[in-house]
Amino acid sequence: MLNAKQTENLRVVLVAPRNPLNIGAAARAMSNFGFTRLRVVNAYEVAFRDARSAVGASPVLDGSEEFSTVAGAVADCGLVVGTTAVRHRQLQQPLKILADGAASIRKRSVRSPVALLFGSEKWGLSNEVLSHCHWVLHIPTRQEHQSMNLGQAVAICLYELVREKPASIAGERRRAANSGTVERITETLLATLEESEYINPQTGRLAGEKLRRLVRRLNLEAADAEVLLGMLHKIRWKLSKTSKSKA
Amino acid sequence: MLNAKQTENLRVVLVAPRNPLNIGAAARAMSNFGFTRLRVVNAYEVAFRDARSAVGASPVLDGSEEFSTVAGAVADCGLVVGTTAVRHRQLQQPLKILADGAASIRKRSVRSPVALLFGSEKWGLSNEVLSHCHWVLHIPTRQEHQSMNLGQAVAICLYELVREKPASIAGERRRAANSGTVERITETLLATLEESEYINPQTGRLAGEKLRRLVRRLNLEAADAEVLLGMLHKIRWKLSKTSKSKA
Repeated sequence: MLNAKQTENLRVVLVAPRNPLNIGAAARAMSNFGFTRLRVVNAYEVAFRDARSAVGASPVLDGSEEFSTVAGAVADCGLVVGTTAVRHRQLQQPLKILADGAASIRKRSVRSPVALLFGSEKWGLSNEVLSHCHWVLHIPTRQEHQSMNLGQAVAICLYELVREKPASIAGERRRAANSGTVERITETLLATLEESEYINPQTGRLAGEKLRRLVRRLNLEAADAEVLLGMLHKIRWKLSKTSKSKA
Repeated sequence: MLNAKQTENLRVVLVAPRNPLNIGAAARAMSNFGFTRLRVVNAYEVAFRDARSAVGASPVLDGSEEFSTVAGAVADCGLVVGTTAVRHRQLQQPLKILADGAASIRKRSVRSPVALLFGSEKWGLSNEVLSHCHWVLHIPTRQEHQSMNLGQAVAICLYELVREKPASIAGERRRAANSGTVERITETLLATLEESEYINPQTGRLAGEKLRRLVRRLNLEAADAEVLLGMLHKIRWKLSKTSKSKA
């Protein structure tokens, strides 16, 4: 999780994007994760226009800035980071795996603007562009299929930046059923199974223990335990009613 | 990082996708991160055909499987997980933040197939579909703009799954019941409860969904599930026998 200052300090820089859908997807991911500063360098003009005029184009796109050079787009940044999904290229810069690199970006963005560069769909970032970067971020894709979709690459990098969470939102744990209720379920189920001839009370001496262990393995929540007990009572009632009518 | 068995055990399930580009993007992200098992439920037919015939359609799409129901698509899975970017919906299932949920999925996938469900671009997953899920995974997007692009959501979830360095996987001890068996338990219990007059088939229209969620919360082990199913069959047999003798 980044604070407002860190978020504001990140500039997502798309270098020579060709596809309006990808520009739109990058902007949408930025909006999803709370980033607003989109910069586009040397975009294919039609693509950028189409992206901005698309239905539902985001405020991120409306506020985006155009640059004709990478140098201009990163001029105010204290840290410039390239991205690549490709490992084999002869990189002149240090390579950091996304998880580690994101930590460095978070740290830096406390004090100064940080540029995160994404290359064109077809070519990625050229060596010339990479020469503006302090280091390069690598999304750990599979060796045989490294090249990622631009919109997805942006989404994953931004997700990683905000991934660290104040641990509070974790899914609410539900209250566990108490042992008294669990034991009543066990007893009622045992009786039901005897009445249904699943267990023979004469020969099935271990059935109670087995059943008790099985019911404990369910790790019942309190509310569910009450519901199950109600079901079992009703089934037993029905069984006894029909037996009586037989007798 | 997942081992080969864990990777093979993950099924990405797209429920009612509408846009061929999104289906293609989901398949591409799977390929980037090494997953191969794509399942599509009730796809908009034209969209699915277009996705499969697109230039560069991946082997993932070629090998994808079509299903007409969610129950069918998850039948072989021991864990079924829904996804949502939206927090405010009244969820009936426990919600796990992506980072935590991915850890649970990694653990489970050591021993049994796991289904990861994504809803349609427009509506997400319905409550009926969610009733097949053990819990729901939440991508922590910004409150003001939660809804994510489908292809980006798939990419982020898969990235999180492979993100961790190979750690010692303290595997779960017991094998989880597969969803086919769990669904048979649900159906048999439902029938038993109707015959016992616990549920009125006329007025209890939501009973099926509620029951399905309750049975999933039990997190049944494979062996216990078989035992429970046997018990339920015997109880039903007894109920039907006594009803007949009454008539």
